[in-house]
Amino acid sequence: MNLMNRLRRYLPILEWGAKYTSRTFTNDLLVAGIVTVMLIPQSLAYALLAGLPPEVGLYASMAPLILYAIFGTSRALAVGPVAVASLMTAAAAATIASQGTPEYLGATIALAAISGLLLLAMGLLRLGFLANFLSHPVISGFITASGIQIAAGQLAPVLGIDAHGESFVDVVQSMIPNLGNINPYTTVIGIASLVFLFWVRSGLKPLLLKFGLSERAADLLAKVGPVVAIAVTTAAVWGFGLSEQGVKIVGTVPKGLPKFSMPPMELSLWAKLLVPALLISIVGYVESISVALTLAAKRRQRVDPDQELIALGMSNFGSAVSGGFPVTGGFSRSVVNFDAGAETPAAGAFTAIGIAMATLFLTPLLYFLPNATLSATIIVAVLSLVDLAAIKQTWHYSRSDAAAMITTILLTLVEGVEIGLLAGVGLSIFLHLYRTSRPHVATVGQIPGTMNFRNRDRHDVVTDPEILSLRIDASLYFPNARFIEDYINQAVAAESTVRHVILECPAVNTIDASALESLEAVNARLKDGGITLHLSEVKGPVMDRLKRSHFIHQLTGKIHLTHFDAVSSINPELARRALESADTR
Amino acid sequence: MNLMNRLRRYLPILEWGAKYTSRTFTNDLLVAGIVTVMLIPQSLAYALLAGLPPEVGLYASMAPLILYAIFGTSRALAVGPVAVASLMTAAAAATIASQGTPEYLGATIALAAISGLLLLAMGLLRLGFLANFLSHPVISGFITASGIQIAAGQLAPVLGIDAHGESFVDVVQSMIPNLGNINPYTTVIGIASLVFLFWVRSGLKPLLLKFGLSERAADLLAKVGPVVAIAVTTAAVWGFGLSEQGVKIVGTVPKGLPKFSMPPMELSLWAKLLVPALLISIVGYVESISVALTLAAKRRQRVDPDQELIALGMSNFGSAVSGGFPVTGGFSRSVVNFDAGAETPAAGAFTAIGIAMATLFLTPLLYFLPNATLSATIIVAVLSLVDLAAIKQTWHYSRSDAAAMITTILLTLVEGVEIGLLAGVGLSIFLHLYRTSRPHVATVGQIPGTMNFRNRDRHDVVTDPEILSLRIDASLYFPNARFIEDYINQAVAAESTVRHVILECPAVNTIDASALESLEAVNARLKDGGITLHLSEVKGPVMDRLKRSHFIHQLTGKIHLTHFDAVSSINPELARRALESADTR
Repeated sequence: MNLMNRLRRYLPILEWGAKYTSRTFTNDLLVAGIVTVMLIPQSLAYALLAGLPPEVGLYASMAPLILYAIFGTSRALAVGPVAVASLMTAAAAATIASQGTPEYLGATIALAAISGLLLLAMGLLRLGFLANFLSHPVISGFITASGIQIAAGQLAPVLGIDAHGESFVDVVQSMIPNLGNINPYTTVIGIASLVFLFWVRSGLKPLLLKFGLSERAADLLAKVGPVVAIAVTTAAVWGFGLSEQGVKIVGTVPKGLPKFSMPPMELSLWAKLLVPALLISIVGYVESISVALTLAAKRRQRVDPDQELIALGMSNFGSAVSGGFPVTGGFSRSVVNFDAGAETPAAGAFTAIGIAMATLFLTPLLYFLPNATLSATIIVAVLSLVDLAAIKQTWHYSRSDAAAMITTILLTLVEGVEIGLLAGVGLSIFLHLYRTSRPHVATVGQIPGTMNFRNRDRHDVVTDPEILSLRIDASLYFPNARFIEDYINQAVAAESTVRHVILECPAVNTIDASALESLEAVNARLKDGGITLHLSEVKGPVMDRLKRSHFIHQLTGKIHLTHFDAVSSINPELARRALESADTR
Repeated sequence: MNLMNRLRRYLPILEWGAKYTSRTFTNDLLVAGIVTVMLIPQSLAYALLAGLPPEVGLYASMAPLILYAIFGTSRALAVGPVAVASLMTAAAAATIASQGTPEYLGATIALAAISGLLLLAMGLLRLGFLANFLSHPVISGFITASGIQIAAGQLAPVLGIDAHGESFVDVVQSMIPNLGNINPYTTVIGIASLVFLFWVRSGLKPLLLKFGLSERAADLLAKVGPVVAIAVTTAAVWGFGLSEQGVKIVGTVPKGLPKFSMPPMELSLWAKLLVPALLISIVGYVESISVALTLAAKRRQRVDPDQELIALGMSNFGSAVSGGFPVTGGFSRSVVNFDAGAETPAAGAFTAIGIAMATLFLTPLLYFLPNATLSATIIVAVLSLVDLAAIKQTWHYSRSDAAAMITTILLTLVEGVEIGLLAGVGLSIFLHLYRTSRPHVATVGQIPGTMNFRNRDRHDVVTDPEILSLRIDASLYFPNARFIEDYINQAVAAESTVRHVILECPAVNTIDASALESLEAVNARLKDGGITLHLSEVKGPVMDRLKRSHFIHQLTGKIHLTHFDAVSSINPELARRALESADTR
């Protein structure tokens, strides 16, 4: 029984598989058909973006989908190659070898393997919280910058010129001298595809609705637009013999299923790829889990974040052993999956079968597919990731969050994805520590007619010149311990009548060893001056810990349940009079 | 006037200098005499520890003291070479060149210059909070480990053998093969000095008290013990010609004052020394400011932490241009300064004059001074820094603080000072983030007869099955945003009767952009399920910020002043009945 429960936890397929019906099967099959049509051009395009041969994109769209169907907990998530992870893969692999070499391909496979193992380890060790260190502004800024960089990079194939580089700035600089070599045929195909795809996004759906299609059908049809662009431009290249005019085409895509083999295992290679693989894993996971949670919430389904790590880990490792590159749950495909009505993860497995059929039978049709069209589909897809409005919105809400976001964007554009992301994470942690290093401290007094104490600068309150009541609006820990120590010393020095200091601690969620040391120092200094130190409203967990310290014995005053109790114990007369006063409330 | 105030702020000497009297002068002069006697052997010993010729220690004890007297705010702080900074200096300079070379000396001078500029910049830009990132357990562990490492390293000169290495482990390993070469004369001098100095620390003072000396006089006399050891062993080496028996001696110390010159300014050298210099600065500052604050508090004097950065910055830069190495406020010297009754920083300036006299006239007397004696004084001094009891005490109070402390100690001993310190800082930040990433959330209910709400697991409270009241015991920010989001989703899923969720926020000191995003997601998901979301007891600064967000308009419920108000607005009947119930209290 225990074993069965465990198996169920790690193999969600046992849960939904047991309830699988022929109706669910028909439905999942239909969904898989739609997603397959959408995934073929995407997988080719993202392989191109990652600097890899097209078949690698197809390989990454088979084994991972089947493994996710076995291990995943989301019913709608569609796993496979995605734009941002492909860009990060290209950046990391470029540090190992140049595009087109077997070493480059080996590096991307190794990235998928390392990512897979890292995600698996994070899932088994329940380290999913690591993903939380990517704050929302940082991930949002990073995705915006990646979108801009990808779009800029894909402009080159659209124009039929070369571009390379690890950052937006590099890519643009490398394009400029080549602007004279624009290929007119390629440009026509590329720009026409771009215009068509943008129109499909914005103009087609209203038109279809006008023709009486349902909202859902119009949405789905609009999503298969890229297939039309691909069919038309492929036919044009073939019909007019444009590949002889310098239009770059996909060419021979090897027929057949991927061969399974172990990924490259050299230790030195793994050591070099560890940090990029970790970043790819975390960015991929954050993207994937937020899509999964959002879609699950709409249908009241559960998604287990730790099991999702395991599922993505298996998918990536599966991608690696079948010759693919890093994968994750993609936003647009998952939404299509969801809208089309995917009922179980089996839809993903059927999609994998669809892709397998395509690699077996359709690859000759892809021979004349122009790269420019694939690049156009990437540009249209990634521009939806760019969210510049978020900068303004974040700035409006919090300057420091906006600073982390802008830093991430600028450094990603100028220095590349790794430095941009790491700097963003580092800065957001630093800014948080900085903010908490100078916490808010309020001098409080009793609100007449109540037992409540409030900031004396904001309210009319009753105070006793002998009692200094300080409410500390922060946990006490090393970044602010010395600040609080200094604050109390100065506050006491400024009010010569003070004989008692009471620290009101409802917002103190923790007191670490540094802060305890500071409190001991404050207590000792106040004692030297004949002033007693009291605490009030100390929380249960904080109190439990204080009981294990020397501080509690050294404390010159007492620890009181409420601030009113504390003041009453020192000046019962005043506290009672203030309480009975009907001044306010 | 404004200018004068500014000058006064940056030049505290203007303040105390104006009130200087002849009585203060006499007193300061007496103190300076005592400190000079103590500082001569210390400055020689710490130069030896830093791998430098003895005169460099004397140089570092002149200009810095005068500059501190001009810029410093502590009346008792005695600036000069100290043990831990000397060890760190040796470790950093060893990465540039080997001991005894002009490059090594240049590196130590450059370290003092960079430290000086960094401290100055931190003071002028008010970046003193950076020092707070050294948590108390980390600095305490670091000083303990440094003490152990220094003592181990100085055991070699005491035995007359060689030792080298950047960590405790290296030093011990390098000593073992040389144990056969122990010099018996050196060992006798070294061990005798050690025994004598330990006795001076522990046995001399009670004896002096028995002879009727005052407590203070006994303390001061015990502090000049090293001078006696030095005089006796120097005489012995000279009298018995022990230097010809292989006893290493200080030898010729160049006579005269230091020559002023610019420190080495190569950019590549500065780049290599930047991180070590930053660490030396921060460790030195933390050591110095805590001594200064402790002593100032005893006499109700003020110390300005930002001005202290400026003063230490000037002192270090002054040390560099006069051929010295990094300095800071030392604990034992400052305590002597304080106990002897230093009234103004002028005592420091007079000490500098005392040291200058010594370099002019006393250096020939130091010729036969055995290194073993200096090493013995270092060992006795640093062993007082080793505080192993603190590990147990910290472990008892907080496991994660103890983990940071133990990591710092072990990595310092095994990998050296820089890695140890950086790992400790990194780990303490990580552990803090980890702790706050899974905050405490309590489901609360109303305590009968009151308007107070408490954890329903700990108290008998009144609850409404339609209302889920959650008290969040943490600030909401990126490391815990997703946790809180998930927690609320699960709590709602577990209680099917819930129609209203109220988040009680008295401990929420901040809500960052990531947490705002999570709250928006929670609100949207609850709305889909027909559940309203309310907040209560939101703090002023948090409220001010929420008012600038979209969240406040999207929120399905309201923001209430107190939790009682929130519950009353939903179920006035129940709240009233609970309040009127005389069940408890």
